[in-house]
Amino acid sequence: MTTIGIVGLGMIGGSVALAARRAGHPVLAWDTDPTTRRRAADGGLAVSADLTTADVIVLAAPMPALTDGLPALLARVRFSDTATITDVGSVKQPVAAAIRAAGLSERYVGGHPMAGTELTGFPAATADLLVGARWVLCLDDHDSERRIAAWLRVAGLITELGAGVLALTAAEHDTAVALISGVPHLLALALSTYAEMSGPVVATLAAGSFADLTRVAGSSRVLLDAVTQQNAAAVRAALRLVLEQLDRPWDDLIELGQAARQSVRAKAAAGGLRGHLPGRTHVLVSGAAQLLELGRAGVVIESVDFGTGVIGYRPGDAVAAYE
Amino acid sequence: MTTIGIVGLGMIGGSVALAARRAGHPVLAWDTDPTTRRRAADGGLAVSADLTTADVIVLAAPMPALTDGLPALLARVRFSDTATITDVGSVKQPVAAAIRAAGLSERYVGGHPMAGTELTGFPAATADLLVGARWVLCLDDHDSERRIAAWLRVAGLITELGAGVLALTAAEHDTAVALISGVPHLLALALSTYAEMSGPVVATLAAGSFADLTRVAGSSRVLLDAVTQQNAAAVRAALRLVLEQLDRPWDDLIELGQAARQSVRAKAAAGGLRGHLPGRTHVLVSGAAQLLELGRAGVVIESVDFGTGVIGYRPGDAVAAYE
Repeated sequence: MTTIGIVGLGMIGGSVALAARRAGHPVLAWDTDPTTRRRAADGGLAVSADLTTADVIVLAAPMPALTDGLPALLARVRFSDTATITDVGSVKQPVAAAIRAAGLSERYVGGHPMAGTELTGFPAATADLLVGARWVLCLDDHDSERRIAAWLRVAGLITELGAGVLALTAAEHDTAVALISGVPHLLALALSTYAEMSGPVVATLAAGSFADLTRVAGSSRVLLDAVTQQNAAAVRAALRLVLEQLDRPWDDLIELGQAARQSVRAKAAAGGLRGHLPGRTHVLVSGAAQLLELGRAGVVIESVDFGTGVIGYRPGDAVAAYE
Repeated sequence: MTTIGIVGLGMIGGSVALAARRAGHPVLAWDTDPTTRRRAADGGLAVSADLTTADVIVLAAPMPALTDGLPALLARVRFSDTATITDVGSVKQPVAAAIRAAGLSERYVGGHPMAGTELTGFPAATADLLVGARWVLCLDDHDSERRIAAWLRVAGLITELGAGVLALTAAEHDTAVALISGVPHLLALALSTYAEMSGPVVATLAAGSFADLTRVAGSSRVLLDAVTQQNAAAVRAALRLVLEQLDRPWDDLIELGQAARQSVRAKAAAGGLRGHLPGRTHVLVSGAAQLLELGRAGVVIESVDFGTGVIGYRPGDAVAAYE
């Protein structure tokens, strides 16, 4: 049993609070917004800025509050000198830099759950939102034992909530999400902008796949800034490489793109979770290098025993690629 | 009451057949595939290659059969010398060229219903698929009275099936769908291809908006060829203009893209259909120029009286732009 302190009760933070409570953990929750605090209290959560009894602090505020705004955010809550700190920000290097500036690096583990809907705020939070999600948890190649212990503690909590953990460095995470999230958002914005310039016929006919593709252009300004501006170098690089694909003869592109989509779907399915089949593999964690090797092979960790350092994951195509 | 002959019983052709039957029209249906013919007959449709009693022939075969394959397709069915001919191909200029080569231009009206799902084939056909769809029906600026009469006949049938008609030239249609359909499909293929090259981490994390954006990359080869290769010049032009948007500062792009998405959604809603409010406007058709002026303003025509030449549409933002 771990006491969890959650700072920021939007869709993700609120869902972590509800899922941790359901898993039997004492939860202390806080948000900068008084209305959100009242809603959380009405929902039966213990709301307090005094988080000194928490073993793990989850910083779940939106990105600007986790980077430039981090000192101001940390000044509004109290937590112990030994608490492990994690976050849920969508870009990891800028948050790590802000955490370093605040002198908290040794007990910080950066995190990013790949989950969410178009909704935002505490009313959109549910105890099930993170079940089955893939949650990146950052490590560095030569991390200290203390940081590995912090990593295992947070990974143990996350897997207990039903999500799967992928170990990556912050830079690896930022490179991957530049492609997965940054580039699609920019393409959707470019399509929407040009559609508007094209006049009423396009607007009248736009539906179906066009609507699917531009839906993410409607995301919040805060999210769009996070996935583009705050990860600009990685997004620029990924965008350039995606657009290079368009220089292929379209015949080749159709062939490759259809095959790629099937392969990506198969690998995503092989990555584990949802339907716990027998055959889970258990290994004793030997260090950061081993965890990162699994993560880089796309292996999703499904269980972590914080006391013994044993992790479990399911074999599959992704594991075969690793072995 | 109009007798409808339908050639090609895929998702769209099958849905036209079922909807026309529901509307009380005699329907004669045929498909090159014997299994499809049997399924259609099992579904209670009158299946025959002899369509000589049909007043309107709907060519609903996939694109290659409507262009290079048109002579072969026409050789397999019989229809009268006076029947009006329409089609449902996703690119209009190549079909018009094939129809011209077959000597059928004077009684041909090119059409394209903007409807469908990821499914294909007769089992995916339903009488409701086309209800509320926007259906482009092509005209030329200086069309003859005979061609206008053919246009009104087909438009009357389409509106009776619950879809709305937009009058455009074939070139205008191809330019608009290059942006709406061709560019999104190419971007999805480029994203999928690069994701596959990026290795297992991207595959494991890919979900949510990435899955939305690459879903269309899974479309059939036939559809992908139609929306890209057979409309290549227009798609290339639209792609260049969309990609130019990415050269803006991303801050501007976010601002413009979000505003554009809202505006496009509002205009699409204003274009009419779904929920027939009072206030429909009725006008007597005076010629191709008037119909095209409405279409270019994004006005969706909701009813057509073939006998009197009166069309009805709903006022709204799109109409305000036209007025």
